[in-house]
Amino acid sequence: MTINLSENERIDDLQIKGYRIIQDKTAFCFGMDAVLLSDFADIKKNEKVLDMCSGTGILPILLAAKTQGKYFEGLEIQEKMARMAERSVSLNGLEERVGIRCGDVKEASMIYGRDAFDVITCNPPYMNQNHGLKNPDEPKAIARHEVLMTFEDACAQAFAVLKPGGRLYLVHRPQRLSELITTLKKHRMEPKRLRFVHPYIDEPANMVLIEAFKDGREQMRIDSPIIVYSAPNVYTKQIYDIYGYDCDADGK
Amino acid sequence: MTINLSENERIDDLQIKGYRIIQDKTAFCFGMDAVLLSDFADIKKNEKVLDMCSGTGILPILLAAKTQGKYFEGLEIQEKMARMAERSVSLNGLEERVGIRCGDVKEASMIYGRDAFDVITCNPPYMNQNHGLKNPDEPKAIARHEVLMTFEDACAQAFAVLKPGGRLYLVHRPQRLSELITTLKKHRMEPKRLRFVHPYIDEPANMVLIEAFKDGREQMRIDSPIIVYSAPNVYTKQIYDIYGYDCDADGK
Repeated sequence: MTINLSENERIDDLQIKGYRIIQDKTAFCFGMDAVLLSDFADIKKNEKVLDMCSGTGILPILLAAKTQGKYFEGLEIQEKMARMAERSVSLNGLEERVGIRCGDVKEASMIYGRDAFDVITCNPPYMNQNHGLKNPDEPKAIARHEVLMTFEDACAQAFAVLKPGGRLYLVHRPQRLSELITTLKKHRMEPKRLRFVHPYIDEPANMVLIEAFKDGREQMRIDSPIIVYSAPNVYTKQIYDIYGYDCDADGK
Repeated sequence: MTINLSENERIDDLQIKGYRIIQDKTAFCFGMDAVLLSDFADIKKNEKVLDMCSGTGILPILLAAKTQGKYFEGLEIQEKMARMAERSVSLNGLEERVGIRCGDVKEASMIYGRDAFDVITCNPPYMNQNHGLKNPDEPKAIARHEVLMTFEDACAQAFAVLKPGGRLYLVHRPQRLSELITTLKKHRMEPKRLRFVHPYIDEPANMVLIEAFKDGREQMRIDSPIIVYSAPNVYTKQIYDIYGYDCDADGK
């Protein structure tokens, strides 16, 4: 199989089942947040999953590797990113379990209809539109800032396309937690489980993972914290475990 | 000075400045939550503090010991508890900085008027009224269940008696976090800082400490986690530090 790489593109090894991903170093590259979200998302056998704001397609590809979910759809608004994600799907021979669609999250319920998915994952833009944005048309700005969609759009669409009792998994910035919780609840997506990520054990959290249930009952669980570093440039065992370096990572 | 102890009462050493407290072992005794709340509450010099649901008076007494706050008022609805708290105040010679009043939190704004305090602390009943309650008149039931007041009552009264920009510090159960946040926001008490307490580093949180600002801007900080035990019956250094056992605890 021939995979065409454009200028600035490179292929990275995902360290699981030999899967690889194409990324453009001038655009948005996936980070630890995507990996932590793929670990946090509890996908059950035969479930159908939609990944909103899919970017490079990292979430559907990682989840196809890690879980027994049936089908993973990545929805990405940027044409160039979506095409790149499609090539990554082909590169890994995942065409039957992973699909990529170029489209607008705000139109998800029109594209897929209601009650279409068991689970939604989403690594949305973290920053409010008004947070010092210079070039709103750039791919990185679209991935990081709420230029083309807001968190509220994601909640409304998640509620619409999820089956009754369906789950939404997302990663976001703790700075916005109070707004995230009220917005989720406004759209009947009840936050039921949070997990905070701290760079060091004695520092504030810089990421939050959220599990929300469609029409769930008010009852929260705060998981054990994830601590990233035990010393400068030294990852904790927890991070190695999540990245799967202890497993037979290259066992193709 | 003579301190009269009733049946079932005992005097416990607070391990700070030689302060002691009277407790009734058949009623509600203060726990780690009160000590952690006294550590979390950031009381500045000369501030005036109201402790709602004051119980044994543990919060005002600990805060008088640990901070440079000017005056601490404990509001407690149970007459017997309030009288016991008053005797603890006398026992420590704190009559000028600590006052205890027997009264209903729901009437705080009538008792104290508006804009009366810089800070409120509150270790409220954790359980919803409907959580399997057998003897709603017992002192322990009143301290633990929302029999005589709800969390919403506390938020409404906190907003009323706080000065503009005033702070509320409370400890609660993480299970209720999503309701706590929406109720605080409904009463214009913006949650700005959370700290979770985990029994062990790999277990879910069983307490949450919350700092909320009257009419604060939406912006959250998740402090580093508090881990209680490093092994069964072995407290972490963090807990020893908070309890002040490293300091000159008995330096009277």
